[in-house]
Amino acid sequence: MQAIWLQNQQLSYRTDISVPTPANGEALVKVLLAGICATDLQLINGYYPYTGILGHEFVGEIVQAIDAPERIGERVVGEINVACGKCANCLNNQPTHCIQRTVLGIINRHGAFAEYLCLPLKNLIPVPTSVSNEKAVFTEPLAAALQIQQQVAIRPNHKVLIIGAGRLGQLIAQTLVLTGCDLQVVARYEQQQQLLQAHKIAWILEQDIEKHNFNIVIEATGSTTGFNLAIQAVQSRGIIVLKSTYRDMSANFSSIVINEITLVGSRCGSFAPALRLLENKLVDPTSLIADKFHLSQTLQAFEYMRQPGILKVLLQMEN
Amino acid sequence: MQAIWLQNQQLSYRTDISVPTPANGEALVKVLLAGICATDLQLINGYYPYTGILGHEFVGEIVQAIDAPERIGERVVGEINVACGKCANCLNNQPTHCIQRTVLGIINRHGAFAEYLCLPLKNLIPVPTSVSNEKAVFTEPLAAALQIQQQVAIRPNHKVLIIGAGRLGQLIAQTLVLTGCDLQVVARYEQQQQLLQAHKIAWILEQDIEKHNFNIVIEATGSTTGFNLAIQAVQSRGIIVLKSTYRDMSANFSSIVINEITLVGSRCGSFAPALRLLENKLVDPTSLIADKFHLSQTLQAFEYMRQPGILKVLLQMEN
Repeated sequence: MQAIWLQNQQLSYRTDISVPTPANGEALVKVLLAGICATDLQLINGYYPYTGILGHEFVGEIVQAIDAPERIGERVVGEINVACGKCANCLNNQPTHCIQRTVLGIINRHGAFAEYLCLPLKNLIPVPTSVSNEKAVFTEPLAAALQIQQQVAIRPNHKVLIIGAGRLGQLIAQTLVLTGCDLQVVARYEQQQQLLQAHKIAWILEQDIEKHNFNIVIEATGSTTGFNLAIQAVQSRGIIVLKSTYRDMSANFSSIVINEITLVGSRCGSFAPALRLLENKLVDPTSLIADKFHLSQTLQAFEYMRQPGILKVLLQMEN
Repeated sequence: MQAIWLQNQQLSYRTDISVPTPANGEALVKVLLAGICATDLQLINGYYPYTGILGHEFVGEIVQAIDAPERIGERVVGEINVACGKCANCLNNQPTHCIQRTVLGIINRHGAFAEYLCLPLKNLIPVPTSVSNEKAVFTEPLAAALQIQQQVAIRPNHKVLIIGAGRLGQLIAQTLVLTGCDLQVVARYEQQQQLLQAHKIAWILEQDIEKHNFNIVIEATGSTTGFNLAIQAVQSRGIIVLKSTYRDMSANFSSIVINEITLVGSRCGSFAPALRLLENKLVDPTSLIADKFHLSQTLQAFEYMRQPGILKVLLQMEN
C-alpha cells in the first residue's frame, strides 16, 4: 500500500508497504482523510526518535474486524493512545498515560498517513452521519483542545488569553468561547485574525497584551517567546496551560513562585465530547482547512505547511 | 541603632542607623531574635536589587504604637508583606500579592536584622505565652511551609516526596507528616537525615527515588538538579510544588506536557495556622537551630551558614 514513512528524520512516500494485519481485538481501517499536525513536524525535527508510518489525525472506515464483524463499514475516528489496561496508570483510569502505551504514528505504532491502519476496536469511535469527513478529521485535535477544560475549570467570569492562533489555538478558541468567558487570542497573521473574527472571537497583537490581568492563559505556540508572554499576562495565582509540543527551554521560575502561578501540562483528550460539539455544530473546524493534497503529494504538503500562518493541511487517499 | 545593611550585594554591620519612625497605623518593634533564610543569601547574591536593612524572620516586642497603645509590650511576630488594601489583588483578598506591596527586608522596607523595625499593627500577630522566642522566630518559614497545603490538597493516601532537607525542607516535612500521607524526604547530609529520623520521617538518597511514583513532589532546593529529580519522581497527572527561590533555569517542558504534570509556585503563608501548630507542639523547629550569633557577628554568621548542611542560624540582639 501507499504510506508516508519517517526514518532518521527523513520523510519518504513509499508504495512497498504491506497492508497491516490487525492483532487480537484490533480492526483494519481504511483511511479516508488525514490531517497534518505540529507534532508531525516536531517528529520530523527529531523531537522523538520515531521510525514508521507517520500521522495520527484521521477519519476512516472499518474494513476488517474479526472480533466484531457487525462493525465492518462503520465510519470511525480513533483514539491514538493504545493502552495495556494492566499498568498502574491504566488501573488508575488514566489510559492515555499507560506506561506501556503505543501511540498512533508517534510511539511504536504505524500511523494514519497510509491507505490502511490498525487500532483496537475500543479505540475506534463511530462518527455521527451528520458529521462530514472534513469535520471528523479534526476530532483528535478538538479532543486535545477540550482536554484543557477537563483539567482546568474555566468559569464564565474568567479572563482568558490564548497565545497562538494556529491550528490548535483556533480550535481551543472555538471551544473556550462556548464557556462565555472573557476571551482574547493573540494572533500574528491576518488569516488567523480573520478566522477568529468570523467566529466573533476577539484577537489582539502581542504588544497589546494586558500585563498580569488574565486568570487563565493558554500557551499554544510551544516557543520560549510564547511562554514568556504567558508569564507576563497571567495574574497572581493564575493558571498557565501548556498546550503545545516543547523542547527544553529556559524559563523564569522565580516569577512562577513569587506570583504563585500554576502551570498545567495538557495533552490528549476524549473523543466523545469532541464529536458531540461537531454534531451539534457548536464548533466548525472546516474553515481551518488551508488545502488538501493526495497522499502521494505529502512531501509537498509538508513544505506548503511550513509557511507561516498556514492552518490545517489534509491528506486524502483517493483522487 | 545597630543594623545589618545590604547595598550593591555587600553586607555591612552598621551602628549609625536611626531608630525608624512608625508611619500611620504602624508600630515600632524591638527585635528579640531573628533568623537567616535562603532568601537573604539570594539577596546578597543579587537575586533582587535590594538596598537597606536585611532580614524578615523575627520575633519582637511592640515598644511604640500610637494607634493602639494597649498593645505596647506585646510579644509579636510579623507578616512580612505590607499591602496597600486598594489594588485589584488586595480587593481580591490576596494581600500577599498586592501590586504596591513592600516586603520586610526584601522589597522597599527595612528588615529585621536590626534593633528595631516598623510594621503595620495589623501585620503584628501576638505570640502565645507558651511559645518561646526560639520557636516563634520560625513562624514565617513555617507559614510558608503550610502555604503548600493552602494551595494543594494533600490526602492521607498520597505518596509525597520532598526534595531537599534544608531549613525549609525540614519544616515542610514536619507539617506534611501531620497529614498521614506516605512521605519521603531526599536528604543529602547526615545531620539532615538524623533530624528527620528524630521526627520519625522517612529519608532517602537521591539515587533511591522511585521514578514516576509520587502523587505530589515538593521541590525545596531551588536547583536545576532538584527540579529534574522532581520531574522524574512525579507520576502522570501529579503535582510538583515549587517551594524555593529560583533563578532562570532550563527545564524539560515536553515531559510536563506529555505526563500532564501540574507545577504550583508557592510563596508566603498565613501566620495564624503556624502559631497554632507551634502552640500545640505539633511542630518543633528548635532542633533546626545550628547556632546563635550576636547581631554584631552577622557577617560571621553568614559565613558559617554557607557551609553545606547547616540549618537555621539565629541572630540575637542582646548578649
